[in-house]
Amino acid sequence: MELASLIRDVPDYPIEGILFKDITTLIQNADAFQEVIDWMVELYADISVDCVVAIEARGYIFGAPLAYRLGAGFVPVRKPGKLPAKTISESYALEYGTNTLEMHEDAIKPGQQVLVIDDLLATGGSARAAVNLVERLGGEVAGVAFMIELDFLHGRDKLEGYAVQSLIHFD
Amino acid sequence: MELASLIRDVPDYPIEGILFKDITTLIQNADAFQEVIDWMVELYADISVDCVVAIEARGYIFGAPLAYRLGAGFVPVRKPGKLPAKTISESYALEYGTNTLEMHEDAIKPGQQVLVIDDLLATGGSARAAVNLVERLGGEVAGVAFMIELDFLHGRDKLEGYAVQSLIHFD
Repeated sequence: MELASLIRDVPDYPIEGILFKDITTLIQNADAFQEVIDWMVELYADISVDCVVAIEARGYIFGAPLAYRLGAGFVPVRKPGKLPAKTISESYALEYGTNTLEMHEDAIKPGQQVLVIDDLLATGGSARAAVNLVERLGGEVAGVAFMIELDFLHGRDKLEGYAVQSLIHFD
Repeated sequence: MELASLIRDVPDYPIEGILFKDITTLIQNADAFQEVIDWMVELYADISVDCVVAIEARGYIFGAPLAYRLGAGFVPVRKPGKLPAKTISESYALEYGTNTLEMHEDAIKPGQQVLVIDDLLATGGSARAAVNLVERLGGEVAGVAFMIELDFLHGRDKLEGYAVQSLIHFD
């Protein structure tokens, strides 16, 4: 299946000049959704994974089925104020200003093998923040995977030293 | 497994006087997460499901694995402004004020069999809004399922006439 053709380009979203990659048209296609998850499962079928960390909100759509299939726990990374118990947080730079992501401080135990999952790798700030959260809790990042990578934004550079995988590339 | 014991009570979140049911402690437990998803799969194993609609953000954690296991498409319901293409929206009353949920207007085709999934049934406003969105697009709601139901809030009353299922009840 030509997965890339199922992704909808939305011009000027969220702001003028951005060509947004809308994944909803892909994931509402049952066969396409299946193929993406199966690709992720295949990547990690031969390693031991304790938990899958995914980034709010679209990351959950891929991270949760992956955790289920691998028999791993699921850990949500969320925007500030959304997690009810004690959290740790990481901020990262945007073109203008900063964003912050949080994780419960008891979400990961030292030595756990962890995957970090999101729908799309753009500049890499949020993925790097999630990796940092995992490592601050003593987790070991066994892999980082995305359905889509926007190669021209070089987000992969922020994840140097990690095993980064993407299924669909736009360059 | 005693699933209810894995849910963490957080007092005074998000506001004073609310005892928040924190599901993160359950879903980070691989066996418990597996058991919840398998329960949902079992509910719908014998019917034909075209797509699973889940409510941002925690609903995705259950709806996405369910869609994957059933071989169905996945459709996200989101907060206003988060979906990039043309949407329809439904508002519902809160104790103070209203909330709005949106769905892409091409997310569901007339006659499709749809499940509506969320983590928790409280007053039922958001689930009812999601059901309305599905029906406005011509979808048929084949079932509505939650991991948790707060029986004392009677959210089920807002979903009368639908097949509502919950795994863990607090009364």
